[in-house]
Amino acid sequence: MTAPKPFDRPPGSALAGGTAGPGALQPLVAEVLAALRRGAARRGGPLPPGGPAAVAERLRALLAPSALLPEQGDPGALEALVEALAATAADPADPACAAHLHVPPLAVAVAAELATAAVNPSLDSWDQAPGSTSVELAVVRALAGLVGFARPEAAAGVLTGGGTESNLMALLLARDAFPREQFASGRLTVHCSQAAHFSIARGAALLGLDRDAVVPVQTAPDGRMDPRVLDWALADARAAGRVPCCVVATAGTTDLGAVDPLAAVAAVARRHRVRLHVDAAYGGGALFSRRLAPLLDGLSEADTIGLDLHKLGWQPIAAGVLLVREAVMFAPLEQRAAYLNPEDDEDAGYTSLLGRSLRTTRRADAFKVAVTLRTLGRAGLGALVDRCHDLAGYAAERIAAEPRLELTAEPVLTTVLFRYLPQRGAAAGAETDRVNAALRRRLLEQGSAVVGRTELGSGPGSVRLKLTLLNPGTSTAELDRLIELVLAAGADSEPPDADEQRETNS
Amino acid sequence: MTAPKPFDRPPGSALAGGTAGPGALQPLVAEVLAALRRGAARRGGPLPPGGPAAVAERLRALLAPSALLPEQGDPGALEALVEALAATAADPADPACAAHLHVPPLAVAVAAELATAAVNPSLDSWDQAPGSTSVELAVVRALAGLVGFARPEAAAGVLTGGGTESNLMALLLARDAFPREQFASGRLTVHCSQAAHFSIARGAALLGLDRDAVVPVQTAPDGRMDPRVLDWALADARAAGRVPCCVVATAGTTDLGAVDPLAAVAAVARRHRVRLHVDAAYGGGALFSRRLAPLLDGLSEADTIGLDLHKLGWQPIAAGVLLVREAVMFAPLEQRAAYLNPEDDEDAGYTSLLGRSLRTTRRADAFKVAVTLRTLGRAGLGALVDRCHDLAGYAAERIAAEPRLELTAEPVLTTVLFRYLPQRGAAAGAETDRVNAALRRRLLEQGSAVVGRTELGSGPGSVRLKLTLLNPGTSTAELDRLIELVLAAGADSEPPDADEQRETNS
Repeated sequence: MTAPKPFDRPPGSALAGGTAGPGALQPLVAEVLAALRRGAARRGGPLPPGGPAAVAERLRALLAPSALLPEQGDPGALEALVEALAATAADPADPACAAHLHVPPLAVAVAAELATAAVNPSLDSWDQAPGSTSVELAVVRALAGLVGFARPEAAAGVLTGGGTESNLMALLLARDAFPREQFASGRLTVHCSQAAHFSIARGAALLGLDRDAVVPVQTAPDGRMDPRVLDWALADARAAGRVPCCVVATAGTTDLGAVDPLAAVAAVARRHRVRLHVDAAYGGGALFSRRLAPLLDGLSEADTIGLDLHKLGWQPIAAGVLLVREAVMFAPLEQRAAYLNPEDDEDAGYTSLLGRSLRTTRRADAFKVAVTLRTLGRAGLGALVDRCHDLAGYAAERIAAEPRLELTAEPVLTTVLFRYLPQRGAAAGAETDRVNAALRRRLLEQGSAVVGRTELGSGPGSVRLKLTLLNPGTSTAELDRLIELVLAAGADSEPPDADEQRETNS
Repeated sequence: MTAPKPFDRPPGSALAGGTAGPGALQPLVAEVLAALRRGAARRGGPLPPGGPAAVAERLRALLAPSALLPEQGDPGALEALVEALAATAADPADPACAAHLHVPPLAVAVAAELATAAVNPSLDSWDQAPGSTSVELAVVRALAGLVGFARPEAAAGVLTGGGTESNLMALLLARDAFPREQFASGRLTVHCSQAAHFSIARGAALLGLDRDAVVPVQTAPDGRMDPRVLDWALADARAAGRVPCCVVATAGTTDLGAVDPLAAVAAVARRHRVRLHVDAAYGGGALFSRRLAPLLDGLSEADTIGLDLHKLGWQPIAAGVLLVREAVMFAPLEQRAAYLNPEDDEDAGYTSLLGRSLRTTRRADAFKVAVTLRTLGRAGLGALVDRCHDLAGYAAERIAAEPRLELTAEPVLTTVLFRYLPQRGAAAGAETDRVNAALRRRLLEQGSAVVGRTELGSGPGSVRLKLTLLNPGTSTAELDRLIELVLAAGADSEPPDADEQRETNS
């Protein structure tokens, strides 16, 4: 027998697993925490100043191809790169970082993530994830209870990369519930509101549905789907020889946080015998709050539901979930692979979750969710949701009281839409748009705030700014200061003549 | 102004980010490391004994719905769940856990993952990931150099969830390079070897390609695609009025580790003017090794390439990569969202990676890859690859020398296929299959080893066992012991009469 030559372990190649793993991790983790602290201090605000070119320049030497993949390793890489990561981040834990559905994760969830990464289970077969398979099934069962499914024990689900993947899967399951011929004929349609997330249209295109398969249903001015209009649209589609395969309702639009009237939409879908998917990626978190949960009345009547616990659940990315009312709805995803889930192993009780997911190798994202749900309980998570909702209410009042700011709508969940009104811009929509876009970039370039931006409708005058308040630790004084920053950046972004005019006036 | 009532932070709700985050993480991380150590010790082997029912039973109380999502939180959740996770894991850091392309991750990569989770960048817009956007671009550039693209600066890529997602994206980009009508007519075809990963067929179905769109090309007995057969298949498809949109070559099949003859396949694809995607999810890691890299000659001629650094790259899941030869090939994924990448922001240099991915919210998996590449360098990673290749060679020799074991083929990368030959089973294929399947489950139930299982071809006699050797720390003595375990479990799984017969003989 030729035994291979003795192995000289290259530096930096210690493993994270087994009984020796924690010992190897200990000094590295200490390095990471120290470098994160230094990096955050170096950044000194919500994001690094200078804009994209300056950030790229600061990282250039560290990330040059010869530095990133050298022939011989560099034992200082971890420390240098972690410090740079923190120094060049837009950190949602900073109260002035409030643009997107991008949460500051809970420390307890991040610590759980460390365990997941060290143990590294893969959910595509039982023998890569004995315990983690049970954990995912349990998390899904608990969430099936939370959404109020009538028979949570009959439900099923899977962790996903986020709402985009959950929506794609829901559409896939809806498509494949129809005979292949219906799909091939290009007759299938999907009905969602105008304000539904772009991933619905993207998902339909990915799945090869017809170009006009997604039928947008007009929304009321509050951003909610009108169930009567949905009713007509479904009838119209049928009359035109189309085959509606899915209604998609949104529980929490990205901008307004609007929640479609789920019970009424469910009734319409049921009457037309069309499957109902609810995209509750944002709004699903309201279920933790006794105060806000009623917004989602009717959710339990959905056939499939998408939730994102990396939004109102404060998980590090990713913690998406797709729930289905009946496990049998996963049938189109069934997959038999001789090397993963042979039939006699399944018969012997070796459950594989391969047939629940679009993926093969799959990280146990359910673990951090399990830790978080149990650490905080529904009451703890509900308190965080309520706090962010309170902050949104406070910010809206502050904005409404500022003459140079215009509040777009009362907040529903935790977003606040508004815009800056330039001295002479109120009438000229395009100029107001330009000033709002410029003031936002000015804040980014200063490194002083990350404020969101979106469009309400289209055409001149549609640009809006957005605060997405997801940091329960933010104080009202910090919100006041953020609004002052917006006002100052707005004044600085007005065209020079307006500035001069103001000077003359003063 | 109604300020919201003062906020009583619920227990367990400290955040991981900002300058305060590392302080909040410190005690939690210490808890995690201690619990991982206790859990691994409690497990005491590669996986928990008793099989699925026993594992589920051990977790039942911890994971009951009322325990998982209680009304009030439980501050002991992290410790209890992490210990349980480790105690019920199949740990690839144990030398007897050698079934799947499921690696023991490097401690340095796991530590980097902690930083990613704490900082929580999301790659769908620059203002959620200023530095991380640069990191992903740099990792992609370095890997484009590693695969040998002629113009790495013109290439592009994206981190994915793994080979399955990379393959899906490659097929999507190939499909959408054709006019919609070609797709709608059901004429597009995809050509890959019989031994290609099942995710090719799955991806084609997801994309709505025709039922017979994936044309399997017969492989030689060594599991490699025959380029002449591919040539004929492409000509046949055209003659039948079909439109080949993609050839998929495999660099490292899951079972045999077979690498298609890439240069010859590329020449055929080029001659037929069909796009070439190479699924190098497993074999791509050979590029780090001077000894094995020549197996992948011709890879640089691919149009798109999938790599999985959570295989021969020792990353925690997920670290998939899709590379494209020319950035313009991503055009079908372009996506404009007013709230993420408005045109004037992009013009001002705020690069968003939204149009590179199927996802919206997206974790910065590139960060741990960057840390690992730089910490180990090509030489360090190459040494790990070579070591696993050496171990496979040693295991193959050991198996070939055992009368009760039959080696299926010489290892190419790091997998070894073989089977146990029961005393009287050699002729009766079905019985040999049963014994091999049973011996594998017996090892799982004992908690003594996780050995892979697959099928070579179909029908009686096709079942094979598999060692996937991905732990560079495994010693030859540990491999010897693993083989002894297989032999003992084989003997115990033979039908009783055979046992009796042997006793009589001895």
